[in-house]
Amino acid sequence: MRTTSVGVFRIATTGPGDVSGLMDLIVSGAIDPNSILAILGKTEGNGGVNDFTREYAVAALCTALAPKLGLSAPDVEQRIAFVMSGGTEGVLSPHITVFTRSEAERPAGLSGKRLSIGMAHTRDFLPEELGRAAQIAETAKAVQTAMADAGINDPADVHFVQIKCPLLTSERVAAANARGNTTATTSAYSSMAYSRGASALGVAVALGEIGSDLGDEDVLRRYDLFSKVASTSSGIELMHNVVIVLGNSGASVSACVIGHAVMEDAIDASAVLSALNSVGLGAAPQTTAGRTLVNIFAKAEASPDGTVRGFRHTMLEDTDISATRHARAAVGGLIAGLAGTGAIYVSGGAEHQGPAGGGPVAAIARLSD
Amino acid sequence: MRTTSVGVFRIATTGPGDVSGLMDLIVSGAIDPNSILAILGKTEGNGGVNDFTREYAVAALCTALAPKLGLSAPDVEQRIAFVMSGGTEGVLSPHITVFTRSEAERPAGLSGKRLSIGMAHTRDFLPEELGRAAQIAETAKAVQTAMADAGINDPADVHFVQIKCPLLTSERVAAANARGNTTATTSAYSSMAYSRGASALGVAVALGEIGSDLGDEDVLRRYDLFSKVASTSSGIELMHNVVIVLGNSGASVSACVIGHAVMEDAIDASAVLSALNSVGLGAAPQTTAGRTLVNIFAKAEASPDGTVRGFRHTMLEDTDISATRHARAAVGGLIAGLAGTGAIYVSGGAEHQGPAGGGPVAAIARLSD
Amino acid sequence: MRTTSVGVFRIATTGPGDVSGLMDLIVSGAIDPNSILAILGKTEGNGGVNDFTREYAVAALCTALAPKLGLSAPDVEQRIAFVMSGGTEGVLSPHITVFTRSEAERPAGLSGKRLSIGMAHTRDFLPEELGRAAQIAETAKAVQTAMADAGINDPADVHFVQIKCPLLTSERVAAANARGNTTATTSAYSSMAYSRGASALGVAVALGEIGSDLGDEDVLRRYDLFSKVASTSSGIELMHNVVIVLGNSGASVSACVIGHAVMEDAIDASAVLSALNSVGLGAAPQTTAGRTLVNIFAKAEASPDGTVRGFRHTMLEDTDISATRHARAAVGGLIAGLAGTGAIYVSGGAEHQGPAGGGPVAAIARLSD
Amino acid sequence: MRTTSVGVFRIATTGPGDVSGLMDLIVSGAIDPNSILAILGKTEGNGGVNDFTREYAVAALCTALAPKLGLSAPDVEQRIAFVMSGGTEGVLSPHITVFTRSEAERPAGLSGKRLSIGMAHTRDFLPEELGRAAQIAETAKAVQTAMADAGINDPADVHFVQIKCPLLTSERVAAANARGNTTATTSAYSSMAYSRGASALGVAVALGEIGSDLGDEDVLRRYDLFSKVASTSSGIELMHNVVIVLGNSGASVSACVIGHAVMEDAIDASAVLSALNSVGLGAAPQTTAGRTLVNIFAKAEASPDGTVRGFRHTMLEDTDISATRHARAAVGGLIAGLAGTGAIYVSGGAEHQGPAGGGPVAAIARLSD
Repeated sequence: MRTTSVGVFRIATTGPGDVSGLMDLIVSGAIDPNSILAILGKTEGNGGVNDFTREYAVAALCTALAPKLGLSAPDVEQRIAFVMSGGTEGVLSPHITVFTRSEAERPAGLSGKRLSIGMAHTRDFLPEELGRAAQIAETAKAVQTAMADAGINDPADVHFVQIKCPLLTSERVAAANARGNTTATTSAYSSMAYSRGASALGVAVALGEIGSDLGDEDVLRRYDLFSKVASTSSGIELMHNVVIVLGNSGASVSACVIGHAVMEDAIDASAVLSALNSVGLGAAPQTTAGRTLVNIFAKAEASPDGTVRGFRHTMLEDTDISATRHARAAVGGLIAGLAGTGAIYVSGGAEHQGPAGGGPVAAIARLSD
Repeated sequence: MRTTSVGVFRIATTGPGDVSGLMDLIVSGAIDPNSILAILGKTEGNGGVNDFTREYAVAALCTALAPKLGLSAPDVEQRIAFVMSGGTEGVLSPHITVFTRSEAERPAGLSGKRLSIGMAHTRDFLPEELGRAAQIAETAKAVQTAMADAGINDPADVHFVQIKCPLLTSERVAAANARGNTTATTSAYSSMAYSRGASALGVAVALGEIGSDLGDEDVLRRYDLFSKVASTSSGIELMHNVVIVLGNSGASVSACVIGHAVMEDAIDASAVLSALNSVGLGAAPQTTAGRTLVNIFAKAEASPDGTVRGFRHTMLEDTDISATRHARAAVGGLIAGLAGTGAIYVSGGAEHQGPAGGGPVAAIARLSD
Repeated sequence: MRTTSVGVFRIATTGPGDVSGLMDLIVSGAIDPNSILAILGKTEGNGGVNDFTREYAVAALCTALAPKLGLSAPDVEQRIAFVMSGGTEGVLSPHITVFTRSEAERPAGLSGKRLSIGMAHTRDFLPEELGRAAQIAETAKAVQTAMADAGINDPADVHFVQIKCPLLTSERVAAANARGNTTATTSAYSSMAYSRGASALGVAVALGEIGSDLGDEDVLRRYDLFSKVASTSSGIELMHNVVIVLGNSGASVSACVIGHAVMEDAIDASAVLSALNSVGLGAAPQTTAGRTLVNIFAKAEASPDGTVRGFRHTMLEDTDISATRHARAAVGGLIAGLAGTGAIYVSGGAEHQGPAGGGPVAAIARLSD
Repeated sequence: MRTTSVGVFRIATTGPGDVSGLMDLIVSGAIDPNSILAILGKTEGNGGVNDFTREYAVAALCTALAPKLGLSAPDVEQRIAFVMSGGTEGVLSPHITVFTRSEAERPAGLSGKRLSIGMAHTRDFLPEELGRAAQIAETAKAVQTAMADAGINDPADVHFVQIKCPLLTSERVAAANARGNTTATTSAYSSMAYSRGASALGVAVALGEIGSDLGDEDVLRRYDLFSKVASTSSGIELMHNVVIVLGNSGASVSACVIGHAVMEDAIDASAVLSALNSVGLGAAPQTTAGRTLVNIFAKAEASPDGTVRGFRHTMLEDTDISATRHARAAVGGLIAGLAGTGAIYVSGGAEHQGPAGGGPVAAIARLSD
């Protein structure tokens, strides 16, 4: 039976254009550039429409990796899945997480399911399809393709599905209008939420968390419909969805395992502890021997009803700071406190990703065995 | 022996001008308006120089309390200490905490030290005195006066010293310049940090936490000098320091007790738990019987060295969101997660309040006995 | 024939709570408080959903005027129309403009039409009516009532129609949802645009600038439909529209006249000059004798197509600064340059107020004759 | 006599990474890449410390130009002077201006002085030298070197001196502290002002506008000392000053000429018109035949005394939007209105560049003769 080894490397960056940490690991032989499948990053922009740190980080990585891979920079971008989540508010610390995958023999004595990764992408969307049923359905198909790629059959083994999805710009709205179509919204900022929401619903459909009979009108309205493992980020630099499935698989011989929990609201410390516990870790300073935290992946959002456990929050009414920045800062502060580090992946905009106001939280630990 | 009863009421607000919650408690008889000594509030402005929600909240409270107290609104402002801390970033929820004090008989069987409160204020400062030795020395004197007012002799019984202090504006800098003097800084925003820092050093001097031989040049530079219980907020609406000492005293028969801990950095979950534990509480959802959390009071700041536990943060380099807003959001998220509520008092700008990057955290619990 | 005298006083403020300038004019006798009909102000908040400087300014003015009028503060707010426009970005300077009206004899030799003012208001709206046909129709009725109040019959004599209109909050959206209805948008910030747009269309209908057969779907879509004299501002503090009509009337013996022009885009310097010329003024430094600029009233917006004269602007894609703040700063800079002062009324959000990306600009001049 | 031809090309960009416009002109032969001397750009970041759009734009340009020049990307950055000014607030439109220089024969009949350009740079500065006398003196030397490079002897022929200068970061401050030295400020944002100010004073010294006996304490204090043609921008990406002198020279046979004026304050429309007039242009829509506006270069700042022509502005007290963003938006709005386009170079932070609150404004026109 074919088995794969999946590696995970968290690398701090000094700026969106900093590729030195990854290059060092390649030069030292710790990372084989040909094995890189995906790079998830937190960059220090505003996480909004005009956050160019995401695009800049991808450009810098592609330029740096191109000679290592014998490819042009654009071809590197086609080969590796780059998901840059903008916004390192509060204690969050800019970094990238590099996922590698290669064929490997199963070591004697290694048993159980280990971290696995799989990828797929949808076709390009029209602007008028974003945030609507078409995006849901195409995403669901891509999730199933990515699960197969990861060697995962049981949806219960899927612990995090990261999706990168498009947003609307003035130009894209105009293009749709020119075709006689309207878009889900005319606001670029709002379109990010629509695209994230429809993509998350696609994950939920694929994993059987909800039924598949969804319409345009369910997006950003039926908040009782959600995925417990979806994490979606929108960016200006693409028109299709990129899907990355993370889970545990018997076909993987990785040194890592992944688990998850669901934050019921933005202050759900218990869920963060559950996610740590699910991979054998406790709260910082960690006392568990033999296991090391690699990274935490979580989504954050301002609860749409304007309250957290009965108390009013002001994130949605703040015209100076976008709600996604507020939410990342707050949830990032909580998770960093429990994890003992701000170098974690907390991404904003959790529409249909976990219950309203909450979101999924996944943890990856490295086993010393 | 004269004993006092100190009451603490946390009241949610629907906006900076909302006084209905307090008025309801007065009408119902739960609060005697004549017993109100201080009101600490979190208002939903930006917490910066142009945060008018603080001033507005005070004006609304004074206007509403005036007929209840038979005073003019300006006289109410002289009688009650109002400390409004702007900024409810992330999950923080706008609210006020009303402190009352009245003479009372000691109930049979009540023993031990209970929550006590004392107040004092300095003379008005000149703009050129802000953030300098004069502000330190005058504040230290006022802290000792407030301790005496609280019936506290032992500095170890002081758990939180809240200070409201002035800031510089263009006009105030110009006034100093017209006298031939320069100010500690010409930036209004920076002056808030200078004023907070000097005030906190005054607390540390008063409580014997540091020596009294401080100079202008120590403010915002000697971050090894700090108070473990100081919490200082600057506002545009005053030119003197208002000092409120909170601690436990044998002369108090309050139903509440107060304790504190010191966060070593912005993600110090252990310290938050210690503060809760110090008044007999645990993390949310709380399992401890017989004690109820009334509120938590904490200070937050972006660590001046640009890192948290070895990982870079970006708060100090963000030109779009001030570092104080970042820090309140992150620390507020952590404390809210452990306390189980966002209706807590987390104030930004912890210069010389706790170690660099950290800050004091105090908890008040009500005993059911 | 009954004639009225209309006075206009521009008063600088030192903060949203500053009422001293107006009080001084009342004490000196320059303003009879009983003659005050409307106060338009620029306050220094963010002009967005959470701009409490508007509410604070109104509260401060009502509290100060109450004893002068022998009314309670709430009754003052019912009697005088307060329109506070938040946002003094760039060179814009906080101030209020007080409009007074009283009966007066026609002085011998005074002829021609002079500045007149009239007012009216709609019924309270349901949240689900905002930004839709109901708001358009009710506003149109109120404009006609206000014209009659101003003694203006000819729509061509109407030069500025200022409207204050509501916005949606989380609570208001929830209230509509609880009734089984959806609102035009669920975003508080977006709702400001919907409410402004529908109100402006109501003006256009009332003045015959467009037909009256408008539907919900025209708001924020049919940007070819607009009023050349509407100026609408949304605020959290009311649920109905307040309408103030400014124009010239033969029944007025005011020392002032008003005129207007329409900015075709945000950099239309010619239109600003036309508005100044329409009341006999030129660009600063003004050379015209016998006439003094009292104030300029203008609306600004980021052009929805993302360009100004063929060049891309970035206002709509900026997640850190709202587009209304950008637009006020830029248009305020242009008008201030031509008027020679930043103490002008430039308000953001010009949906259906002038052509897309442009907006009305009105000028009031005082004649020395 | 050796003569040079200087070309100026203004190219709109669709984002900070967009190099397509320049590449098209190179492919078409309109621009010889080897002739490119300097590229000044407006990028759409916040213009503050964490504005990575500047760095990203330079990286994209270097990567694209490298194969055209037969150089590595880092070598391109050494060869061409890139000055990216972040911040396209309001109507300002992102673009780059490419300056080329090549040897040329003097065409028959061409007389008079034409646009010339010269360059130089200083040595790297230590963090503790920024904003102080060392930066002033070194900059002055570099300006004189650049004048010679431009073939300009008379300071009166210098119309714009653009400088790119460093700023402080947490790391750089720490490095100075580790050497036992303090820096001019510990705030990254404030350091931008110090560096811009000292660099501008260096220009003033070089051109004889002020004396050369300046000390550390004059920077950001002696606002009566300034240059009428300096424009300085600070960026995180370098530690030395890059100096670009623009003027008219008899040794140039360019199709363009340059002129300038000085805005006395942020609303000085007359000065903008003077600058246009100085190169034979009027206000938009321009009526002058035979001359075309190429670009305008100006500096903007919030007046340090908090007022503009006697009216208070709120730029310096705004904690949500930095004063430089306010000022660029407002001054950009004014100049765009008079020039008829937002694709102009308006840069923030005019410390010692023009009088306090004002700044230099230069215009380049192309002659059709």
